[in-house]
Amino acid sequence: MTREIKVEKRVLSRNDVVATRNRVGFTERGAYVVNMISSPGTGKTTILEATLGRIVEAGRSVAVIEGDVQTENDAVRVAATGVPVEAVVTGGACHLDATMVGKAWQRLEPSLPAALDILIVENVGNLVCPSAYDVGEDEKVALVSVTEGEDKPLKYPALFNAATTCLVTKVDLLPYLEFDVEELVKNARAVNPALNIFLLSAKSGEGMDEWVEYLIGKAKDNS
Amino acid sequence: MTREIKVEKRVLSRNDVVATRNRVGFTERGAYVVNMISSPGTGKTTILEATLGRIVEAGRSVAVIEGDVQTENDAVRVAATGVPVEAVVTGGACHLDATMVGKAWQRLEPSLPAALDILIVENVGNLVCPSAYDVGEDEKVALVSVTEGEDKPLKYPALFNAATTCLVTKVDLLPYLEFDVEELVKNARAVNPALNIFLLSAKSGEGMDEWVEYLIGKAKDNS
Repeated sequence: MTREIKVEKRVLSRNDVVATRNRVGFTERGAYVVNMISSPGTGKTTILEATLGRIVEAGRSVAVIEGDVQTENDAVRVAATGVPVEAVVTGGACHLDATMVGKAWQRLEPSLPAALDILIVENVGNLVCPSAYDVGEDEKVALVSVTEGEDKPLKYPALFNAATTCLVTKVDLLPYLEFDVEELVKNARAVNPALNIFLLSAKSGEGMDEWVEYLIGKAKDNS
Repeated sequence: MTREIKVEKRVLSRNDVVATRNRVGFTERGAYVVNMISSPGTGKTTILEATLGRIVEAGRSVAVIEGDVQTENDAVRVAATGVPVEAVVTGGACHLDATMVGKAWQRLEPSLPAALDILIVENVGNLVCPSAYDVGEDEKVALVSVTEGEDKPLKYPALFNAATTCLVTKVDLLPYLEFDVEELVKNARAVNPALNIFLLSAKSGEGMDEWVEYLIGKAKDNS
Protein backbone atom coordinates (compact mmCIF):
# COMPACT_ATOMS: atom_id res chain seq x y z
CA MET A 1 0.00 0.00 0.00
CA THR A 2 2.88 2.39 0.88
CA ARG A 3 4.37 1.96 -2.56
CA GLU A 4 1.06 2.76 -4.29
CA ILE A 5 0.60 5.95 -2.27
CA LYS A 6 4.16 7.12 -2.96
CA VAL A 7 3.73 6.61 -6.69
CA GLU A 8 0.38 8.45 -6.61
CA LYS A 9 2.09 11.42 -4.90
CA ARG A 10 4.88 11.46 -7.50
CA VAL A 11 2.41 11.31 -10.39
CA LEU A 12 0.32 14.10 -8.85
CA SER A 13 3.29 16.37 -8.23
CA ARG A 14 4.50 15.91 -11.83
CA ASN A 15 0.92 16.72 -12.87
CA ASP A 16 1.01 19.99 -10.91
CA VAL A 17 4.07 21.17 -12.81
CA VAL A 18 2.35 20.62 -16.16
CA ALA A 19 -0.90 22.17 -14.83
CA THR A 20 1.00 25.34 -13.94
CA ARG A 21 2.45 25.44 -17.46
CA ASN A 22 -1.09 25.04 -18.87
CA ARG A 23 -2.33 27.83 -16.58
CA VAL A 24 0.32 30.19 -17.96
CA GLY A 25 -0.78 29.41 -21.53
CA PHE A 26 -4.48 29.87 -20.71
CA THR A 27 -3.77 33.19 -18.94
CA GLU A 28 -1.76 34.49 -21.91
CA ARG A 29 -4.89 34.10 -24.06
CA GLY A 30 -7.03 35.68 -21.33
CA ALA A 31 -9.25 32.59 -20.99
CA TYR A 32 -11.26 31.72 -17.89
CA VAL A 33 -11.05 27.93 -17.64
CA VAL A 34 -13.60 25.57 -16.10
CA ASN A 35 -13.16 21.82 -15.61
CA MET A 36 -16.58 20.11 -15.67
CA ILE A 37 -16.74 16.89 -13.63
CA SER A 38 -19.61 14.48 -12.94
CA SER A 39 -20.77 10.88 -13.14
CA PRO A 40 -21.48 9.46 -16.57
CA GLY A 41 -25.05 10.34 -17.51
CA THR A 42 -25.46 13.56 -15.52
CA GLY A 43 -25.96 15.43 -18.78
CA LYS A 44 -22.61 17.26 -18.94
CA THR A 45 -22.56 17.39 -22.75
CA THR A 46 -26.19 18.54 -23.03
CA ILE A 47 -25.58 21.32 -20.50
CA LEU A 48 -22.38 22.16 -22.37
CA GLU A 49 -24.22 22.51 -25.71
CA ALA A 50 -26.82 24.82 -24.13
CA THR A 51 -24.06 26.80 -22.39
CA LEU A 52 -22.02 27.28 -25.57
CA GLY A 53 -25.03 28.60 -27.50
CA ARG A 54 -25.68 31.24 -24.85
CA ILE A 55 -22.01 32.31 -24.61
CA VAL A 56 -21.81 32.76 -28.39
CA GLU A 57 -25.13 34.68 -28.41
CA ALA A 58 -23.65 37.02 -25.80
CA GLY A 59 -20.83 37.78 -28.26
CA ARG A 60 -18.09 36.09 -26.24
CA SER A 61 -15.53 33.58 -27.55
CA VAL A 62 -15.33 30.06 -26.19
CA ALA A 63 -13.55 26.77 -26.93
CA VAL A 64 -13.85 23.22 -25.61
CA ILE A 65 -11.55 20.33 -24.69
CA GLU A 66 -13.68 17.21 -24.63
CA GLY A 67 -12.52 14.14 -22.66
CA ASP A 68 -13.84 10.60 -23.01
CA VAL A 69 -12.55 7.13 -22.20
CA GLN A 70 -13.60 5.93 -25.66
CA THR A 71 -15.32 7.47 -28.72
CA GLU A 72 -15.33 11.04 -29.97
CA ASN A 73 -19.17 11.16 -29.80
CA ASP A 74 -19.26 14.15 -27.46
CA ALA A 75 -16.61 16.08 -29.42
CA VAL A 76 -18.70 15.56 -32.58
CA ARG A 77 -21.77 16.92 -30.74
CA VAL A 78 -19.82 20.00 -29.59
CA ALA A 79 -18.28 20.54 -33.06
CA ALA A 80 -21.83 20.74 -34.46
CA THR A 81 -22.35 23.95 -32.44
CA GLY A 82 -19.52 25.60 -34.44
CA VAL A 83 -17.34 26.15 -31.36
CA PRO A 84 -13.65 25.07 -31.68
CA VAL A 85 -13.19 21.71 -29.94
CA GLU A 86 -10.40 19.17 -29.40
CA ALA A 87 -11.11 15.58 -28.31
CA VAL A 88 -9.02 13.69 -25.76
CA VAL A 89 -9.71 9.95 -25.83
CA THR A 90 -8.00 8.59 -22.73
CA GLY A 91 -8.18 4.98 -23.91
CA GLY A 92 -9.01 3.58 -20.49
CA ALA A 93 -7.66 6.24 -18.13
CA CYS A 94 -10.35 7.33 -15.70
CA HIS A 95 -9.56 11.07 -15.62
CA LEU A 96 -7.97 13.87 -17.62
CA ASP A 97 -4.53 14.91 -16.43
CA ALA A 98 -2.64 18.12 -17.13
CA THR A 99 -0.50 16.55 -19.88
CA MET A 100 -3.54 15.37 -21.86
CA VAL A 101 -5.16 18.79 -21.57
CA GLY A 102 -1.91 20.59 -22.42
CA LYS A 103 -1.49 18.57 -25.62
CA ALA A 104 -5.12 19.17 -26.64
CA TRP A 105 -4.59 22.90 -25.99
CA GLN A 106 -1.57 22.90 -28.34
CA ARG A 107 -3.68 21.28 -31.09
CA LEU A 108 -6.53 23.71 -30.39
CA GLU A 109 -4.55 26.96 -30.29
CA PRO A 110 -4.19 27.61 -34.06
CA SER A 111 -8.01 27.67 -34.45
CA LEU A 112 -8.58 30.13 -31.56
CA PRO A 113 -9.08 33.91 -31.65
CA ALA A 114 -6.19 35.99 -30.24
CA ALA A 115 -8.23 36.71 -27.11
CA LEU A 116 -10.31 33.77 -25.85
CA ASP A 117 -12.91 34.48 -23.15
CA ILE A 118 -13.75 31.01 -21.89
CA LEU A 119 -12.26 27.50 -22.21
CA ILE A 120 -14.43 24.63 -21.03
CA VAL A 121 -12.86 21.26 -20.29
CA GLU A 122 -15.38 18.41 -20.13
CA ASN A 123 -13.79 15.67 -18.08
CA VAL A 124 -14.29 11.91 -18.33
CA GLY A 125 -17.51 10.77 -16.60
CA ASN A 126 -16.28 9.87 -13.11
CA LEU A 127 -17.22 11.33 -9.73
CA VAL A 128 -14.03 10.17 -8.00
CA CYS A 129 -10.69 10.31 -9.82
CA PRO A 130 -10.82 13.57 -11.86
CA SER A 131 -11.19 15.65 -8.69
CA ALA A 132 -7.56 14.86 -7.74
CA TYR A 133 -6.08 16.28 -10.97
CA ASP A 134 -5.44 19.98 -11.58
CA VAL A 135 -5.40 20.51 -15.35
CA GLY A 136 -4.71 24.26 -15.08
CA GLU A 137 -8.34 25.33 -14.63
CA ASP A 138 -9.58 28.39 -12.74
CA GLU A 139 -12.36 26.34 -11.21
CA LYS A 140 -13.78 22.86 -11.06
CA VAL A 141 -17.53 22.60 -11.71
CA ALA A 142 -19.27 19.56 -10.19
CA LEU A 143 -22.48 18.41 -11.87
CA VAL A 144 -25.06 16.19 -10.21
CA SER A 145 -28.47 15.31 -11.66
CA VAL A 146 -31.75 15.04 -9.78
CA THR A 147 -32.04 11.43 -10.95
CA GLU A 148 -29.04 10.61 -8.69
CA GLY A 149 -29.24 10.53 -4.87
CA GLU A 150 -29.40 13.50 -2.49
CA ASP A 151 -26.43 12.09 -0.57
CA LYS A 152 -23.92 12.20 -3.46
CA PRO A 153 -21.94 15.14 -1.96
CA LEU A 154 -21.50 13.18 1.30
CA LYS A 155 -20.50 9.99 -0.51
CA TYR A 156 -18.08 11.72 -2.93
CA PRO A 157 -16.81 14.67 -0.84
CA ALA A 158 -13.45 15.08 -2.63
CA LEU A 159 -15.07 16.55 -5.75
CA PHE A 160 -17.55 18.78 -3.90
CA ASN A 161 -14.66 20.05 -1.77
CA ALA A 162 -12.47 20.79 -4.78
CA ALA A 163 -15.29 22.42 -6.78
CA THR A 164 -16.15 26.13 -6.78
CA THR A 165 -19.54 25.64 -8.45
CA CYS A 166 -22.15 22.88 -8.46
CA LEU A 167 -24.70 22.50 -11.25
CA VAL A 168 -27.79 20.48 -10.30
CA THR A 169 -29.05 19.18 -13.66
CA LYS A 170 -32.29 17.77 -15.15
CA VAL A 171 -34.55 19.71 -12.75
CA ASP A 172 -37.34 19.40 -15.38
CA LEU A 173 -37.67 15.76 -14.19
CA LEU A 174 -38.42 16.72 -10.55
CA PRO A 175 -42.21 16.22 -10.87
CA TYR A 176 -41.62 12.53 -11.74
CA LEU A 177 -39.08 11.78 -9.01
CA GLU A 178 -38.97 11.50 -5.24
CA PHE A 179 -36.00 13.83 -4.98
CA ASP A 180 -35.46 16.47 -2.29
CA VAL A 181 -33.44 19.33 -3.83
CA GLU A 182 -33.12 21.11 -0.48
CA GLU A 183 -31.58 17.99 1.03
CA LEU A 184 -29.03 17.84 -1.81
CA VAL A 185 -28.16 21.54 -1.38
CA LYS A 186 -27.84 21.04 2.39
CA ASN A 187 -25.47 18.09 1.87
CA ALA A 188 -23.41 19.97 -0.72
CA ARG A 189 -23.02 22.98 1.60
CA ALA A 190 -22.13 20.68 4.51
CA VAL A 191 -19.12 19.53 2.49
CA ASN A 192 -18.31 22.96 1.03
CA PRO A 193 -20.17 25.99 2.48
CA ALA A 194 -18.77 28.34 -0.20
CA LEU A 195 -20.10 26.34 -3.17
CA ASN A 196 -22.05 28.32 -5.82
CA ILE A 197 -25.11 26.24 -6.68
CA PHE A 198 -27.27 26.55 -9.82
CA LEU A 199 -30.41 24.49 -10.50
CA LEU A 200 -30.53 23.81 -14.26
CA SER A 201 -32.46 22.17 -17.04
CA ALA A 202 -30.97 22.22 -20.53
CA LYS A 203 -34.38 20.98 -21.76
CA SER A 204 -36.61 23.71 -20.28
CA GLY A 205 -33.81 26.31 -20.09
CA GLU A 206 -34.44 26.85 -16.35
CA GLY A 207 -31.44 28.41 -14.62
CA MET A 208 -29.32 28.48 -17.79
CA ASP A 209 -29.20 32.28 -18.08
CA GLU A 210 -28.03 32.70 -14.47
CA TRP A 211 -25.30 30.08 -14.92
CA VAL A 212 -24.02 31.60 -18.17
CA GLU A 213 -24.13 35.12 -16.65
CA TYR A 214 -21.99 33.83 -13.79
CA LEU A 215 -19.51 32.33 -16.24
CA ILE A 216 -19.29 35.47 -18.40
CA GLY A 217 -18.90 37.57 -15.25
CA LYS A 218 -15.93 35.41 -14.23
CA ALA A 219 -14.43 35.78 -17.72
CA LYS A 220 -14.66 39.58 -17.39
CA ASP A 221 -13.03 39.51 -13.95
CA ASN A 222 -10.27 37.43 -15.47
CA SER A 223 -9.50 39.56 -18.53
CA MET B 1 4.15 6.88 -18.42
CA THR B 2 6.03 3.55 -18.56
CA ARG B 3 6.56 3.61 -14.82
CA GLU B 4 2.87 4.21 -14.13
CA ILE B 5 1.85 1.31 -16.33
CA LYS B 6 4.36 -1.06 -14.73
CA VAL B 7 3.13 -0.18 -11.25
CA GLU B 8 -0.48 -0.66 -12.32
CA LYS B 9 0.41 -4.13 -13.63
CA ARG B 10 2.14 -5.05 -10.37
CA VAL B 11 -0.80 -3.82 -8.28
CA LEU B 12 -3.27 -5.73 -10.48
CA SER B 13 -1.29 -8.95 -10.35
CA ARG B 14 -1.07 -8.79 -6.53
CA ASN B 15 -4.84 -8.17 -6.58
CA ASP B 16 -5.40 -11.33 -8.63
CA VAL B 17 -3.64 -13.47 -6.02
CA VAL B 18 -5.92 -12.15 -3.26
CA ALA B 19 -9.00 -12.46 -5.53
CA THR B 20 -8.22 -16.15 -6.02
CA ARG B 21 -7.96 -16.62 -2.25
CA ASN B 22 -11.34 -14.87 -1.84
CA ARG B 23 -12.83 -17.12 -4.54
CA VAL B 24 -11.73 -20.22 -2.63
CA GLY B 25 -13.42 -18.89 0.53
CA PHE B 26 -16.65 -18.04 -1.30
CA THR B 27 -16.73 -21.46 -2.99
CA GLU B 28 -16.25 -23.27 0.34
CA ARG B 29 -19.50 -21.63 1.55
CA GLY B 30 -21.23 -22.46 -1.73
CA ALA B 31 -21.96 -18.79 -2.51
CA TYR B 32 -22.56 -17.40 -6.00
CA VAL B 33 -20.92 -13.98 -5.96
CA VAL B 34 -21.89 -10.92 -8.02
CA ASN B 35 -19.98 -7.63 -8.16
CA MET B 36 -22.40 -4.80 -8.97
CA ILE B 37 -20.80 -1.85 -10.79
CA SER B 38 -22.26 1.41 -12.12
CA SER B 39 -22.02 5.20 -12.06
CA PRO B 40 -23.10 6.96 -8.90
CA GLY B 41 -26.86 7.48 -9.03
CA THR B 42 -27.85 4.54 -11.23
CA GLY B 43 -29.89 3.15 -8.35
CA LYS B 44 -27.65 0.23 -7.35
CA THR B 45 -28.71 0.30 -3.70
CA THR B 46 -32.44 0.58 -4.50
CA ILE B 47 -32.18 -2.36 -6.92
CA LEU B 48 -30.18 -4.22 -4.28
CA GLU B 49 -32.87 -3.70 -1.61
CA ALA B 50 -35.59 -4.95 -3.99
CA THR B 51 -33.37 -7.92 -4.99
CA LEU B 52 -32.64 -8.92 -1.40
CA GLY B 53 -36.34 -8.96 -0.48
CA ARG B 54 -37.13 -11.32 -3.35
CA ILE B 55 -34.18 -13.65 -2.61
CA VAL B 56 -35.23 -13.96 1.05
CA GLU B 57 -38.90 -14.54 0.03
CA ALA B 58 -37.70 -17.39 -2.19
CA GLY B 59 -36.16 -19.00 0.92
CA ARG B 60 -32.55 -18.49 -0.16
CA SER B 61 -29.74 -17.05 1.95
CA VAL B 62 -27.89 -13.92 0.91
CA ALA B 63 -25.31 -11.48 2.30
CA VAL B 64 -23.90 -8.14 1.14
CA ILE B 65 -20.55 -6.36 1.06
CA GLU B 66 -21.28 -2.67 0.59
CA GLY B 67 -18.60 -0.36 -0.81
CA ASP B 68 -18.55 3.43 -0.65
CA VAL B 69 -15.92 6.16 -0.86
CA GLN B 70 -17.37 7.85 2.23
CA THR B 71 -20.33 7.20 4.60
CA GLU B 72 -22.00 3.95 5.58
CA ASN B 73 -25.39 5.23 4.36
CA ASP B 74 -25.92 2.37 1.92
CA ALA B 75 -24.81 -0.29 4.42
CA VAL B 76 -27.37 1.12 6.90
CA ARG B 77 -30.09 0.87 4.21
CA VAL B 78 -29.16 -2.75 3.48
CA ALA B 79 -28.95 -3.64 7.19
CA ALA B 80 -32.56 -2.45 7.54
CA THR B 81 -33.64 -5.36 5.29
CA GLY B 82 -32.29 -7.82 7.89
CA VAL B 83 -29.68 -9.29 5.51
CA PRO B 84 -26.10 -9.61 6.90
CA VAL B 85 -23.97 -6.75 5.57
CA GLU B 86 -20.43 -5.43 5.97
CA ALA B 87 -19.43 -1.91 4.92
CA VAL B 88 -16.19 -1.06 3.16
CA VAL B 89 -15.44 2.68 3.25
CA THR B 90 -12.55 3.15 0.83
CA GLY B 91 -11.74 6.65 2.11
CA GLY B 92 -10.99 8.05 -1.32
CA ALA B 93 -10.09 4.96 -3.36
CA CYS B 94 -12.21 4.80 -6.50
CA HIS B 95 -12.86 1.03 -6.56
CA LEU B 96 -13.03 -2.04 -4.35
CA ASP B 97 -10.02 -4.32 -4.60
CA ALA B 98 -9.70 -7.95 -3.57
CA THR B 99 -8.01 -7.14 -0.24
CA MET B 100 -10.84 -4.81 0.88
CA VAL B 101 -13.45 -7.43 -0.05
CA GLY B 102 -11.44 -10.25 1.57
CA LYS B 103 -11.23 -8.35 4.87
CA ALA B 104 -14.95 -7.53 4.79
CA TRP B 105 -15.68 -11.22 4.12
CA GLN B 106 -13.66 -12.20 7.21
CA ARG B 107 -15.71 -9.78 9.35
CA LEU B 108 -18.95 -11.04 7.75
CA GLU B 109 -18.33 -14.78 8.02
CA PRO B 110 -19.30 -15.32 11.70
CA SER B 111 -22.82 -13.96 11.00
CA LEU B 112 -23.43 -16.18 7.95
CA PRO B 113 -25.28 -19.50 7.67
CA ALA B 114 -23.06 -22.56 7.02
CA ALA B 115 -24.27 -22.64 3.40
CA LEU B 116 -24.69 -19.23 1.78
CA ASP B 117 -26.52 -19.10 -1.56
CA ILE B 118 -25.62 -15.62 -2.81
CA LEU B 119 -23.12 -12.89 -1.90
CA ILE B 120 -23.67 -9.47 -3.49
CA VAL B 121 -20.81 -6.97 -3.57
CA GLU B 122 -21.98 -3.41 -4.27
CA ASN B 123 -18.98 -1.55 -5.63
CA VAL B 124 -18.11 2.15 -5.33
CA GLY B 125 -20.08 4.28 -7.82
CA ASN B 126 -17.68 4.48 -10.77
CA LEU B 127 -18.10 3.28 -14.35
CA VAL B 128 -14.35 3.11 -15.07
CA CYS B 129 -11.95 1.87 -12.39
CA PRO B 130 -13.83 -1.00 -10.65
CA SER B 131 -14.03 -2.97 -13.90
CA ALA B 132 -10.26 -3.61 -13.76
CA TYR B 133 -10.38 -5.31 -10.33
CA ASP B 134 -11.31 -8.95 -9.77
CA VAL B 135 -12.55 -9.27 -6.17
CA GLY B 136 -13.22 -13.01 -6.46
CA GLU B 137 -16.70 -12.70 -7.96
CA ASP B 138 -18.41 -15.19 -10.29
CA GLU B 139 -19.70 -12.36 -12.43
CA LYS B 140 -19.64 -8.61 -12.76
CA VAL B 141 -23.06 -6.97 -13.18
CA ALA B 142 -23.06 -3.59 -14.96
CA LEU B 143 -25.96 -1.26 -14.17
CA VAL B 144 -26.98 1.67 -16.37
CA SER B 145 -30.08 3.81 -15.88
CA VAL B 146 -32.37 5.15 -18.59
CA THR B 147 -31.62 8.68 -17.34
CA GLU B 148 -28.03 8.23 -18.63
CA GLY B 149 -27.10 8.18 -22.33
CA GLU B 150 -27.67 5.34 -24.83
CA ASP B 151 -23.97 5.46 -25.76
CA LYS B 152 -22.61 4.60 -22.29
CA PRO B 153 -21.49 1.06 -23.34
CA LEU B 154 -19.47 2.55 -26.24
CA LYS B 155 -17.92 5.24 -24.03
CA TYR B 156 -17.10 2.90 -21.13
CA PRO B 157 -16.46 -0.42 -22.94
CA ALA B 158 -14.14 -1.95 -20.32
CA LEU B 159 -16.99 -2.56 -17.86
CA PHE B 160 -19.48 -3.81 -20.45
CA ASN B 161 -16.80 -6.15 -21.76
CA ALA B 162 -15.96 -7.50 -18.31
CA ALA B 163 -19.62 -7.87 -17.26
CA THR B 164 -21.74 -11.01 -17.70
CA THR B 165 -25.03 -9.24 -17.03
CA CYS B 166 -26.34 -5.71 -17.60
CA LEU B 167 -29.25 -4.28 -15.61
CA VAL B 168 -31.00 -1.33 -17.28
CA THR B 169 -32.58 0.52 -14.34
CA LYS B 170 -35.35 3.10 -13.73
CA VAL B 171 -37.41 2.00 -16.77
CA ASP B 172 -40.50 3.47 -15.01
CA LEU B 173 -39.12 6.89 -16.05
CA LEU B 174 -39.11 6.07 -19.79
CA PRO B 175 -42.40 7.95 -20.52
CA TYR B 176 -40.76 11.21 -19.33
CA LEU B 177 -37.46 10.83 -21.19
CA GLU B 178 -36.19 10.84 -24.75
CA PHE B 179 -34.34 7.57 -24.31
CA ASP B 180 -34.08 4.78 -26.88
CA VAL B 181 -33.76 1.47 -25.00
CA GLU B 182 -33.19 -0.48 -28.23
CA GLU B 183 -30.25 1.78 -29.05
CA LEU B 184 -28.73 1.14 -25.62
CA VAL B 185 -29.20 -2.63 -26.00
CA LYS B 186 -27.65 -2.50 -29.49
CA ASN B 187 -24.63 -0.58 -28.16
CA ALA B 188 -24.23 -2.94 -25.20
CA ARG B 189 -24.31 -6.00 -27.48
CA ALA B 190 -21.88 -4.35 -29.90
CA VAL B 191 -19.35 -4.28 -27.05
CA ASN B 192 -20.30 -7.69 -25.62
CA PRO B 193 -22.63 -9.88 -27.69
CA ALA B 194 -23.02 -12.46 -24.88
CA LEU B 195 -24.30 -9.96 -22.28
CA ASN B 196 -27.50 -10.94 -20.40
CA ILE B 197 -29.70 -7.85 -20.32
CA PHE B 198 -32.60 -7.18 -17.93
CA LEU B 199 -34.84 -4.08 -18.02
CA LEU B 200 -35.75 -3.20 -14.44
CA SER B 201 -37.63 -0.83 -12.21
CA ALA B 202 -37.32 -1.23 -8.46
CA LYS B 203 -40.22 1.24 -8.14
CA SER B 204 -42.78 -0.55 -10.35
CA GLY B 205 -41.21 -4.01 -9.90
CA GLU B 206 -40.91 -4.48 -13.69
CA GLY B 207 -38.32 -7.11 -14.59
CA MET B 208 -37.36 -7.79 -10.97
CA ASP B 209 -38.73 -11.35 -10.86
CA GLU B 210 -36.82 -12.35 -14.03
CA TRP B 211 -33.57 -10.90 -12.67
CA VAL B 212 -33.92 -12.62 -9.29
CA GLU B 213 -34.87 -15.93 -10.96
CA TYR B 214 -31.70 -15.67 -13.05
CA LEU B 215 -29.64 -15.06 -9.92
CA ILE B 216 -31.19 -17.93 -7.97
CA GLY B 217 -30.73 -20.19 -11.01
CA LYS B 218 -27.03 -19.33 -11.02
CA ALA B 219 -26.80 -20.03 -7.29
CA LYS B 220 -28.31 -23.47 -7.89
CA ASP B 221 -25.86 -24.20 -10.72
CA ASN B 222 -23.08 -23.21 -8.38
CA SER B 223 -23.99 -25.27 -5.31
